[in-house]
Amino acid sequence: MSERSELTIGHSSSASEASTPSDVTPAAPSRANWAEQAVADHAGAEHLTREEQVLARIEKARRKKSRVKEERITLSHGAGGKATHTLIDAVFLDAFRNPVLEAMEDGASVTIGGADESGAGGVRLAFTTDSYVVHPLFFPGGDIGDLAVNGTVNDLAMCGARPLYLSAGFILEEGFPVADLQRIVDSMAKAATAAGVQIVTGDTKVVERGKCDGCYINTAGVGVLERPGLLSAATAKPGDKIIVSGEIGDHGVTVMLARGELDIEADVVSDTAPLHELVADLLDAVPDGVRLLRDATRGGVATILNEVAVASQVAVIVDEASVPVQEVVTGASELLGIDPLYVACEGRLVTIVDPAHADAALAALRSRPLGEKAAVIGELKDDPPGLVLLRTSFGGTRIVDMLVGDPLPRIC
Amino acid sequence: MSERSELTIGHSSSASEASTPSDVTPAAPSRANWAEQAVADHAGAEHLTREEQVLARIEKARRKKSRVKEERITLSHGAGGKATHTLIDAVFLDAFRNPVLEAMEDGASVTIGGADESGAGGVRLAFTTDSYVVHPLFFPGGDIGDLAVNGTVNDLAMCGARPLYLSAGFILEEGFPVADLQRIVDSMAKAATAAGVQIVTGDTKVVERGKCDGCYINTAGVGVLERPGLLSAATAKPGDKIIVSGEIGDHGVTVMLARGELDIEADVVSDTAPLHELVADLLDAVPDGVRLLRDATRGGVATILNEVAVASQVAVIVDEASVPVQEVVTGASELLGIDPLYVACEGRLVTIVDPAHADAALAALRSRPLGEKAAVIGELKDDPPGLVLLRTSFGGTRIVDMLVGDPLPRIC
Repeated sequence: MSERSELTIGHSSSASEASTPSDVTPAAPSRANWAEQAVADHAGAEHLTREEQVLARIEKARRKKSRVKEERITLSHGAGGKATHTLIDAVFLDAFRNPVLEAMEDGASVTIGGADESGAGGVRLAFTTDSYVVHPLFFPGGDIGDLAVNGTVNDLAMCGARPLYLSAGFILEEGFPVADLQRIVDSMAKAATAAGVQIVTGDTKVVERGKCDGCYINTAGVGVLERPGLLSAATAKPGDKIIVSGEIGDHGVTVMLARGELDIEADVVSDTAPLHELVADLLDAVPDGVRLLRDATRGGVATILNEVAVASQVAVIVDEASVPVQEVVTGASELLGIDPLYVACEGRLVTIVDPAHADAALAALRSRPLGEKAAVIGELKDDPPGLVLLRTSFGGTRIVDMLVGDPLPRIC
Repeated sequence: MSERSELTIGHSSSASEASTPSDVTPAAPSRANWAEQAVADHAGAEHLTREEQVLARIEKARRKKSRVKEERITLSHGAGGKATHTLIDAVFLDAFRNPVLEAMEDGASVTIGGADESGAGGVRLAFTTDSYVVHPLFFPGGDIGDLAVNGTVNDLAMCGARPLYLSAGFILEEGFPVADLQRIVDSMAKAATAAGVQIVTGDTKVVERGKCDGCYINTAGVGVLERPGLLSAATAKPGDKIIVSGEIGDHGVTVMLARGELDIEADVVSDTAPLHELVADLLDAVPDGVRLLRDATRGGVATILNEVAVASQVAVIVDEASVPVQEVVTGASELLGIDPLYVACEGRLVTIVDPAHADAALAALRSRPLGEKAAVIGELKDDPPGLVLLRTSFGGTRIVDMLVGDPLPRIC
């Protein structure tokens, strides 16, 4: 979630509904004025502390007002890309406005207890929620149950928190087999044990036949923030390295193929996994060099990188040949007509790290099986700010925009 | 939620699917042996502390195993009554088993931070979740938005916590009007402000047309437990008074009538309201005399009283004439064929209080508009343990069982 959709330039959603990136020349003349303006806007902030800069950017974004152009909700509003950002910005953020929500990270960071309003002496918590509507409910490598646990555990981990407690809210369709529910619940219990969290509170609602698709699950999570420092998409700097923790796109491709609507068979399973230990290792190894952690779910790696580009006003340069993707995922993605950079993972993280710590970060990730295929996939530059550029394997360069439309609905 | 369904005797769910209580003679001969046994079982616990007794009861319930007899989920599994309890017990509790979940109150109480495993020096939190699938989305007196905020605020308040932060997870149906979403979100924002909570994190999923009913909302909530003491359905004692904070059944009847399927017009609006201030006043006035707080949502007042009867092994005696019900609600309930004791409220609490503090509790509740019609509706006795008995206005007595079936689906 992010409050920056109106700053994403280059494509208006009305002008282009394509989900794949278009080949254009970066820093084309039509963009030059904007880039100069952005640099000029940014120049005044040099004397501010890192935290003040973050707040200044939030304040700047706040002054602009997004608007949902559609009269009715479309699948793209749930895809995690451009339409989702606009909906969040124009509807949710505008109504619920508060400083915690406006940080727009994977979870909220709040301080509870303590002697005074400043929260000194209190406990710093991360709090997050996700609903899961994946279809089908069961797929190679996982099901909605472990997805619902791992997804929320990962959102807490991406805040830098140690995940502790989950809630579980079920919406069940009348007629749903109790045996399937049992299988899902057993899978959740196993995933919770593996992630070291407890499911401590819950709720069950049943709706009439045809008012749901078997089983939807919401999990919310609470974790404790034990480390100092601020992880934020707005703290990245030119020169920083971009690292992904493993091969991307496995989950999205697996779920699409599991629907059986496409006559494709591929030997691929979901990467659903809890990332909290990988994160703990990384933050232990590089306590001061990690700018941002994100798990690449809906919208994929490309959407995260666009958020970083806009929030930190940097150029994100990705080297296509360095991005780890299984051959089978590349092949299936081509047949599905989507770039793997947009395909959801459920057990992969993206991190932006200080270049001085990149080797240590990579080594820390690679020391665990979950991160053994971690790779540096690119770096940040100062120009053109706000854009993600891909150096293709053929030597060209193209802009990778935020996801538009929803090529892979109900992937999580 | 409770782990006590197997202890609710008198009606097996297969023997009686009626949702209204049946007229039987209490303490009939067939029940005498069981009652004696229960008293005998209970006798050995006299030397234990209150907390040990609670744990002993949980341990006892744990030894018995519930089983879901149905192969498929029915609406009654979401009604909050007997089938819901069995489902929670047999499926969720069995898989997720942990001491926090097993307390089975309206929310989980956990300690975070602190110097050691005991949690000393940490912050005591309440954590709760509810999904809202009410139909219709808009009804006299409220909508799914304020319901979703007030419901979770109330669950935190019933734990004795001060509500602080909410999450909001939306599942939207493709084609849902953005204007309706805006109206719901504005209503949530207004309710959050009124309840003094912030919505700090969220999630939006969109499912295809026909896979949802417009809009479902999950809210999870975090509050801080600032008062000592344990509120639990298992801590009630013979002699305790039962108080409700106002007229019951308004919400359920309003929603049923708002569907327009019944040709009844009645001047009644939902009682949806945040109860945290009422609770704070009550606990300030009677810091040591409150055994239990519950908001009477799905399953109504009758279900709460059954949970108390079973968990504390007491007889609950309700005086029908003392139960505050609006005439219009009584009338509509008669036409709907349901007892108002089973009809959901969304702004009413039930509390069990030490008799020495009953007057003070009543005065505290009545000092606020939300509690001005608070009334003592009955008291607890030691025999027959585990049963709720209603002294009817005609001078008879009947058993009020836990809700069976779902006479009012999707009321919240």
